[in-house]
Amino acid sequence: MTRTFRTTARPAIPAGRAVARTKTTAKTRTRTLIPGQNGAGTVRKSVLPGGLRVITETLPTVRSATFGIWAHVGSRDETRALSGATHYLEHLLFKGTERRSALEISAALDAVGGEMNAFTTKEFTCYYARVLDADLPLAIDVVSDMLTSSVIDPAEVESERGVILEEIAMTEDDAGDCVHDLFAHTMFGDTPLGRPVLGTVDSVNALARDQVARFYRKHYDPTRLVVAAAGNLSHEKVVRQVRAAFDRAGALDRTAGADPVGPRSGSRTLRGGGRVDFLDRPTEQAHLVLGMPGVSRHDERRWPLAVLSTALGGGMSSRLFQEIRERRGLAYSTYAYTSGYADCGLFSVYVGCRPSQVPDVLKICREELDSVAQHGLSDDEVRHAIGQLSGSTVLGLEDTGALMHRVGKSELCWGEQMSTDDMLGKIAAVTPDDVREVARQVLDRRPSLAAIGRLTDRQTAHLHEAVA
Amino acid sequence: MTRTFRTTARPAIPAGRAVARTKTTAKTRTRTLIPGQNGAGTVRKSVLPGGLRVITETLPTVRSATFGIWAHVGSRDETRALSGATHYLEHLLFKGTERRSALEISAALDAVGGEMNAFTTKEFTCYYARVLDADLPLAIDVVSDMLTSSVIDPAEVESERGVILEEIAMTEDDAGDCVHDLFAHTMFGDTPLGRPVLGTVDSVNALARDQVARFYRKHYDPTRLVVAAAGNLSHEKVVRQVRAAFDRAGALDRTAGADPVGPRSGSRTLRGGGRVDFLDRPTEQAHLVLGMPGVSRHDERRWPLAVLSTALGGGMSSRLFQEIRERRGLAYSTYAYTSGYADCGLFSVYVGCRPSQVPDVLKICREELDSVAQHGLSDDEVRHAIGQLSGSTVLGLEDTGALMHRVGKSELCWGEQMSTDDMLGKIAAVTPDDVREVARQVLDRRPSLAAIGRLTDRQTAHLHEAVA
Repeated sequence: MTRTFRTTARPAIPAGRAVARTKTTAKTRTRTLIPGQNGAGTVRKSVLPGGLRVITETLPTVRSATFGIWAHVGSRDETRALSGATHYLEHLLFKGTERRSALEISAALDAVGGEMNAFTTKEFTCYYARVLDADLPLAIDVVSDMLTSSVIDPAEVESERGVILEEIAMTEDDAGDCVHDLFAHTMFGDTPLGRPVLGTVDSVNALARDQVARFYRKHYDPTRLVVAAAGNLSHEKVVRQVRAAFDRAGALDRTAGADPVGPRSGSRTLRGGGRVDFLDRPTEQAHLVLGMPGVSRHDERRWPLAVLSTALGGGMSSRLFQEIRERRGLAYSTYAYTSGYADCGLFSVYVGCRPSQVPDVLKICREELDSVAQHGLSDDEVRHAIGQLSGSTVLGLEDTGALMHRVGKSELCWGEQMSTDDMLGKIAAVTPDDVREVARQVLDRRPSLAAIGRLTDRQTAHLHEAVA
Repeated sequence: MTRTFRTTARPAIPAGRAVARTKTTAKTRTRTLIPGQNGAGTVRKSVLPGGLRVITETLPTVRSATFGIWAHVGSRDETRALSGATHYLEHLLFKGTERRSALEISAALDAVGGEMNAFTTKEFTCYYARVLDADLPLAIDVVSDMLTSSVIDPAEVESERGVILEEIAMTEDDAGDCVHDLFAHTMFGDTPLGRPVLGTVDSVNALARDQVARFYRKHYDPTRLVVAAAGNLSHEKVVRQVRAAFDRAGALDRTAGADPVGPRSGSRTLRGGGRVDFLDRPTEQAHLVLGMPGVSRHDERRWPLAVLSTALGGGMSSRLFQEIRERRGLAYSTYAYTSGYADCGLFSVYVGCRPSQVPDVLKICREELDSVAQHGLSDDEVRHAIGQLSGSTVLGLEDTGALMHRVGKSELCWGEQMSTDDMLGKIAAVTPDDVREVARQVLDRRPSLAAIGRLTDRQTAHLHEAVA
């Protein structure tokens, strides 16, 4: 089969990169952050010239590795005019570099059965590939090429706009997903944290190629990236291959002598409670998020809040699951969750149920939140939730994707690594008093509510009662 | 916190079980099916008295294990009146046994951070728990208890009916999911394979407790179950613990001397092509499944068909993804897939896109299907797809859940195990001629189409043109 491919000239962006091909000679600084045991769980960090961080975790018992690059940019960094630019850019980095077409990028990883993907959040963007260990050099080369040498071809910007509009349409159709975006608006209003990561149809239609290209130049220099890898790998080899790939693009020269950018800070204040955002949609189920301000990811109270969230809605034996689903049969899906940002956070409860169940469901949610706010949890519940969190933490770190995620996010968001044992120690140290204290501080606030569905006037009135 | 719990008397079902507590003394037959290397990948099978099969795969380099029990029953075994009974029963087995309440079942696994879940398909049902290796005896005890000693409490049947109606409502709201159910109807009509696994609101409302209880007694005896476990485990210990758990329920005595039930067979004929099922829904995206009869899971042509499916729509570099998304920006999600049943199969292509793109998208899908039907794939495409399938097969077998799934399903559906190397050998042996031959046999048939969305008359006309 013959394939014709685009022949559009590819401007080098930024212009300097295409010519700078010198090998950097400055020294790499390397430290062992977590020693590990028998070669497993060893976490090492190197800082390359140009301020590029490389963190790896070794897991010599597997045959695979996951390689990722984290960029210190999220939708939170967008003005209203740029809404959706971070995510648009994430798509465009797959669409061709100076050395590879879009097809060559995807075919390279597909050919070895690798998985390549990316995701954009409010505070960071991550690109990654999971491959058999022998294919790690390929993954490093392709992902590094995408991050350092994207051409942001104007024709690709246009065809990808259609893909993103489809993604927005797909998300719009998923009310159980949308309701979390709506709740962000309820809590943060029309601000960067309150706007959806994907942007809107209007903002995506309005974004020009040059705006996105400027955004790329501004946010993707080596001081703002964290390279993370986990699996059956050698730290030294990964560092050497990353350095070669970045050198090929001349990327490390541009920021020679610069230090890595530290974790994000901020001082965001949330809107007061008692708000209701309701979106009328012709769906079978209504989707509800009831919540209030939580704690930031730097706040030590995140440990007791995680215990609280687990006991309230973290599993089949949690209070909400038992009350709403197991005893009353009012919903299929219900859970509690926390979201932690650099300077603030949210604590929320989700339920999806038919409109007729909305009044009962909201009543139970509010009662359970109020009860925990007043009385905390029993000693048994705290012990149970600690066991659950500990077991799921260990089980959750068995694949290389999860390990890469942990070391990359830790470096980007905290600037430090925590061993699994230290994490288990933090969880085990939570006391019923700690939980009572954080429950009093967090759950005793007046909640707000986001809802999507088709409700009668009577059912809509219950939305307002739930946040009274 | 005080929890009041249901006090309804729990009838023992079947009646014999509650009293039969004898330890079975007949001999267990054990064989090694796949030798493995250095203790990893060893697959062993034992047949306990009463015809209960236990298959394990060892992976001594992990700290976890997944334990599952597979039942030889799916929605395909339902009459129209029983539509949804298999899935209803799957829910009810979590709702209490002679020894444990619903809360005690979920709390047991939650307390150690384990994940417990189940799924029902058209041909089988599977219950499983993933835990830290030290907690494997607990998982064996709880899951075996659920399967052998469910009480199917009438009060629980009622409250769980609400949960299932919510699950149906949730699925109805997910048009990208529903369209696959609709396509099954397009291909199989109002027959067991054509009806949805969940049943309908009407059929679930009509199901009586005794109907479901009879279904349980009929389909859950030891000869119809396969126990599967994978991870850091000892086959002998698993067999001993399973035997003890089943003996506690008196389950093995009931079928003493019986042989396990063999793989399912059948001789289903599919409806002719050219059909269109369209469901009008007020969604942003239209969801399309275009397909035709494929091959059964026993058919050796499944290997070249898998290669074909991969090249056509199995990754970012596949033909459909490249044509529809990368070059034209017409969709966010598109893929091809095969479904294999005991006696038949399907080959399908999915696309989700805004209604305005439907004509172009269908034209591309049909052209690509026709082109492959006529010309097969190029040597390069076959080589590329073989590499992709091989890599993803190995990467996909790194966690204990996937391994448990493989050995359990293999025993149930084929009655034999295939090593990873044998599987890779089957994939590597596929030639361009094999692909051309299966393409001619499968893709050259007239397709049928299922679509959900809000289309204009002009767009609807294109649905019919696509299957002309």
